[in-house]
Amino acid sequence: MSDSIFSKIIRGEIPCHRVYQDEWVLAFLDINPVARGHTLVVPKEPAATMAELSDQAAAGLGKALPRICRAVMKVTGATAYNLLQNNGAEAGQEVMHVHVHVIPRTASDGLRVTWRPAKLDAEQGADLARQIARLL
Amino acid sequence: MSDSIFSKIIRGEIPCHRVYQDEWVLAFLDINPVARGHTLVVPKEPAATMAELSDQAAAGLGKALPRICRAVMKVTGATAYNLLQNNGAEAGQEVMHVHVHVIPRTASDGLRVTWRPAKLDAEQGADLARQIARLL
Repeated sequence: MSDSIFSKIIRGEIPCHRVYQDEWVLAFLDINPVARGHTLVVPKEPAATMAELSDQAAAGLGKALPRICRAVMKVTGATAYNLLQNNGAEAGQEVMHVHVHVIPRTASDGLRVTWRPAKLDAEQGADLARQIARLL
Repeated sequence: MSDSIFSKIIRGEIPCHRVYQDEWVLAFLDINPVARGHTLVVPKEPAATMAELSDQAAAGLGKALPRICRAVMKVTGATAYNLLQNNGAEAGQEVMHVHVHVIPRTASDGLRVTWRPAKLDAEQGADLARQIARLL
């Protein structure tokens, strides 16, 4: 459990530019936006990472996303957007409380996601999928 | 509504390395993985983008994420991971059916997310938040 700046925002101890709130989530503008309308969707449950979030809180978080995406894109006029959620400092997480970045894309934004995909070997893939599936 | 390769995978017409399935989602290994264990979590509802997903399907998608993250990280040994969901070709979306990338991070992966954050002007932020909140 974390008591981060986002817990303080949720408790109203620190102000935010709020765009949405319900039983499960609070959504507000990122104060360091990558693009106009860059919004954070934060579950009220104080879990640090997605893996630690309860099923109920994760369902509440998921449910809020489509409507928030629609409203942000309508106001900003963006037609493309990324949702990004970082877990762990090595993955770029800065506040240790789950948050989903909703980032409208514009031609002039500075956001670049670069990756170097490999090719999944069929046999290794089958074995790996079995190992993961066994835990689910 | 889309009828993409993911709809075919969901209907069992194309095989996949499945790791999880329930009423709302199917999760399987990405065949072009950025890192070992790179998994796609796909709602069965054939919406192209997050904004088009129904509340119920989005809740089902959200609910599945923590358990899938736990299983993938346990098997791969990764401690940091990103969730990335692209909407629109300009945002890097290649298959026009909602999917969440679950990407374990390793020191040697090729994933780089670079961004150029600005500073949110308090007055402009308040105005923008009001505009978005009005739609929610």
